[in-house]
Amino acid sequence: MHIGFCCPGVSPEPWQAEIEQLMPQARLSVWQPGAPADLDYALVWMPPQAFFDEQPQLRGVFNAAAGVDALLKLRLPPQLKIVRLEDAGMGLQMAEYVCHAVMRHFRRFDLMAQQQRQGLWKQPPEPDRASYAVGVMGMGVLGSRVVQALRAFDYTVHVWTRTPPAQLLPGVLSHVGAAGLPAFLAHSHSLVCLLPLTPQTQGLLNRATLSQLPRGAQLINVARGAHLVDQDLLALIDEGHLESATLDVFHQEPLPADHPFWSHPRVRVTPHASARTLRTDAARQIVQKMAQASAKVPWAQISGLVDRGRGY
Amino acid sequence: MHIGFCCPGVSPEPWQAEIEQLMPQARLSVWQPGAPADLDYALVWMPPQAFFDEQPQLRGVFNAAAGVDALLKLRLPPQLKIVRLEDAGMGLQMAEYVCHAVMRHFRRFDLMAQQQRQGLWKQPPEPDRASYAVGVMGMGVLGSRVVQALRAFDYTVHVWTRTPPAQLLPGVLSHVGAAGLPAFLAHSHSLVCLLPLTPQTQGLLNRATLSQLPRGAQLINVARGAHLVDQDLLALIDEGHLESATLDVFHQEPLPADHPFWSHPRVRVTPHASARTLRTDAARQIVQKMAQASAKVPWAQISGLVDRGRGY
Repeated sequence: MHIGFCCPGVSPEPWQAEIEQLMPQARLSVWQPGAPADLDYALVWMPPQAFFDEQPQLRGVFNAAAGVDALLKLRLPPQLKIVRLEDAGMGLQMAEYVCHAVMRHFRRFDLMAQQQRQGLWKQPPEPDRASYAVGVMGMGVLGSRVVQALRAFDYTVHVWTRTPPAQLLPGVLSHVGAAGLPAFLAHSHSLVCLLPLTPQTQGLLNRATLSQLPRGAQLINVARGAHLVDQDLLALIDEGHLESATLDVFHQEPLPADHPFWSHPRVRVTPHASARTLRTDAARQIVQKMAQASAKVPWAQISGLVDRGRGY
Repeated sequence: MHIGFCCPGVSPEPWQAEIEQLMPQARLSVWQPGAPADLDYALVWMPPQAFFDEQPQLRGVFNAAAGVDALLKLRLPPQLKIVRLEDAGMGLQMAEYVCHAVMRHFRRFDLMAQQQRQGLWKQPPEPDRASYAVGVMGMGVLGSRVVQALRAFDYTVHVWTRTPPAQLLPGVLSHVGAAGLPAFLAHSHSLVCLLPLTPQTQGLLNRATLSQLPRGAQLINVARGAHLVDQDLLALIDEGHLESATLDVFHQEPLPADHPFWSHPRVRVTPHASARTLRTDAARQIVQKMAQASAKVPWAQISGLVDRGRGY
């Protein structure tokens, strides 16, 4: 089996070592323009168009990240199978990032930090868990892990999905599709975006939707920058409708130096660090899926297979 | 049954309403100096010495908080039974407060906030969970709840207790007594103090112990201010051995205006807000325990009975 490595800017040696140790029969080559068209599978992250143009015989590509929105913008052979990374240590990190942001909002840690700067000893109002809820958009592997972690702290959780979820934990309320969006938003004191980026979800976090959140709500965007209309968020914070935002993803990354998010006192910016791909976990998962494909397991049974029509 | 209410500075009406609704046969009086010595039980929080001097017939007092260190400094009739509050909504809040502080340290949120102020887009080093551990001192109701929450995020947890704990969750390592303290401290990247305040634990967080923490560790004190030698902590932070501290309790509360904790950039001060007594939960628990005492359940079987020799 010949595997291509096409992850511009990523050092290949540690991946090669991990993969060849797990799959000694595989040969892993770092793709270069003009290389022979003989790859069976490829491990990719932000590959260039030329890679697909030169390797039309590829049977499957394995994306070293969960989001495939950038990949699907390329011209890909119609029959090419795409498998995305699931979890690989990212679920726990994402749960941690989101819980930290929710707790900061619910327990008023920013208010207490501000009071410390003023030398003011004043307990915030008692946290009233019964009248607080977290809304999670998207229930993929990461969304489900986040919901599980939030439930461990007894937060009421509302979830919003395109299709009804197969199963829900106790204490989790489901809202589906466009018809379910208003009730979902009205309940979400912290709104967590974990949607895939598709033409349907692009710009979904805008004035019309964010203004339906309860007054004083927080937005947590850990999906893609293009889900959010930046100026609508800033206007709703400055008007006092939303309290704050915790943003890990942006239209352009790194976030441009002159973007108002950097200096806004109620916007917390982190550098796309909510959930990093852990190489060892990722390599193990990708090798396992490549072995399934190579053993002729039907693609539809390989977890993480991307539905290109759906966009994720 | 005649119950006295002796919680100076606390509004009695909502407590009266809660308790009389749960226990219609009880009469609850707000204690005043010179009142008849006819109370059977009392609900107390920071009661004055005069209360005990004037009510020698009291059979049991129920403390509306978990810590009884201040109460045990009073002259109390030797046979008087003392029962402290357990959990009553505090466990979950405490777990939340501690997890928030641990995540802030482990995931480098303070570093990322500082980078935001500088307009710097730079991912912190990958979080390496395998080489990070949390140390929890004290495994009472609150400590156990905190450990459970930390384990939900796969943190390795070390616990330090006076006597061996009855049972431990998987992934939790136990250290006991003075002999176990050095190994416990050497593992604790976040050190959480949840000990009762007794003559044995007073001043336990000092230069000799805190300097045994790994370089870059964080102290989280949510027990009592008197556990900590303030100037030793500040010196170890300023020398660069400890990274930071999250403090919710202080020798004197409110924290005096001129205390260096207020303005230290690496000390996070919160106003004794880590775990508030939730009145409805507390009233329900206290009523249940009073009903047990009144029904002649042996005191030793009433959960939360204070061992006055042990100090908690």
